[in-house]
Amino acid sequence: MISISIIGAGNVAQHLIKAITKSPNLELRQVYARNPESINNLTDSSKIISDYSDFKDADLYLISVSDDAIATVSSQLLFENKLVAHTSGSVAMEALNDKNRKAGFYPLQTFSKNKDVNFKEIPICLEAQNENDLQLLKKIAENISDVVLEIDSTQRKSLHVSAVFVSNFVNHLYQIGNEICAENNVSFDILKPLISETANKIMLLSPKEAQTGPAKRQDTQTINSHLAFLTNENQKDIYKILTKSIIDDGKKL
Amino acid sequence: MISISIIGAGNVAQHLIKAITKSPNLELRQVYARNPESINNLTDSSKIISDYSDFKDADLYLISVSDDAIATVSSQLLFENKLVAHTSGSVAMEALNDKNRKAGFYPLQTFSKNKDVNFKEIPICLEAQNENDLQLLKKIAENISDVVLEIDSTQRKSLHVSAVFVSNFVNHLYQIGNEICAENNVSFDILKPLISETANKIMLLSPKEAQTGPAKRQDTQTINSHLAFLTNENQKDIYKILTKSIIDDGKKL
Repeated sequence: MISISIIGAGNVAQHLIKAITKSPNLELRQVYARNPESINNLTDSSKIISDYSDFKDADLYLISVSDDAIATVSSQLLFENKLVAHTSGSVAMEALNDKNRKAGFYPLQTFSKNKDVNFKEIPICLEAQNENDLQLLKKIAENISDVVLEIDSTQRKSLHVSAVFVSNFVNHLYQIGNEICAENNVSFDILKPLISETANKIMLLSPKEAQTGPAKRQDTQTINSHLAFLTNENQKDIYKILTKSIIDDGKKL
Repeated sequence: MISISIIGAGNVAQHLIKAITKSPNLELRQVYARNPESINNLTDSSKIISDYSDFKDADLYLISVSDDAIATVSSQLLFENKLVAHTSGSVAMEALNDKNRKAGFYPLQTFSKNKDVNFKEIPICLEAQNENDLQLLKKIAENISDVVLEIDSTQRKSLHVSAVFVSNFVNHLYQIGNEICAENNVSFDILKPLISETANKIMLLSPKEAQTGPAKRQDTQTINSHLAFLTNENQKDIYKILTKSIIDDGKKL
């Protein structure tokens, strides 16, 4: 049984608590939360602490807080020479305080409060300072997910930046589509099969092969009629920059 | 049995040929193609014509050509007073030549040559000049798809513009993610579960509820570290404009 304590109670922490609790080979030892109410329904209240001096011994301490709080939180831990990992995509392992052994444990997924995920399919990107720690992290990660990778801080950061493009920015484009539909009294639901198919295509084709649309065809007549149709300047600017980027990509071929 | 002839042999035309051929209540009468080779494998060669004078009588003529060719092609048809629809999202029904009855038959999906689609799930947006024609189009569409809608040219155009955002532009963001991964020697495959989940989320949550990431959290430290990480100016510009748009959206709430 490998014991894990979590520091944090946000979206990622909550999904990790669920995944660890489900695994028969992992023990959720404690969760440090400033607001214990947020995770009351996820674990036994005896395991929830809100004072750094209440930490018991654990094989791994997982810091799952906002990126800019990682360094501070890791410096506030009272123990030393333990294995401490953070779950951030963009913060280097080195940002953790020197008094403990540093590691990265980054689940590459978008976590929302009201949407369960299948953790088995989520890639977990690992990094550690020595081979023993890496092996322990692997054991833990393999109990949670079927996709476990060793990756350095730079590669992890490149994945995180890519993730912003293929997930956060993609979702924002869904939001713009939603707004355009609402303005014209058509249901956003009509676009959902297209949204699914656009994501599904990528499982079989490269993004370059999968590209379709007026920009790809350099169909300036349609592009101009779309720009004339849009009334929101911000939407127009986004339309222009992405259209130009697709057209420029086509020229590179 | 309702008979349909198709004018065009591109991606949309080919997927329509397959869908019509599959339906027991529809008859694919003829296909007009400038390059018959492109659809040789899809239908009997006796049905493929490349001369406008070879058209036989049909209940519906479906023009599935590039947007800027629709008006010209519809003016070149030699028959009159027949039902002629185009399959474009962005061209008004009125663009069709006056000598025939005009209609819109727009399947809202992204069609690629090497990727089959389930036409039953594809919304088909219909528009016609009179009730009889609309009823005939409905019968045809319902034999192909489970989602059939009547929609006017403006609404259709709004759907098409939205579709460019949620599909063409989304795919281009996948392409950028792919490029960033390639530059850093990590496999794009690692991002695929995230891409699926981002699309799946939208089936349950509104795009606003589903938004996550550094821009949503107004996490300027991470945003700046991402911008410093990106080396391609075009990628930086896209990162900036979409980040600003998400931040501005958050302020509107």
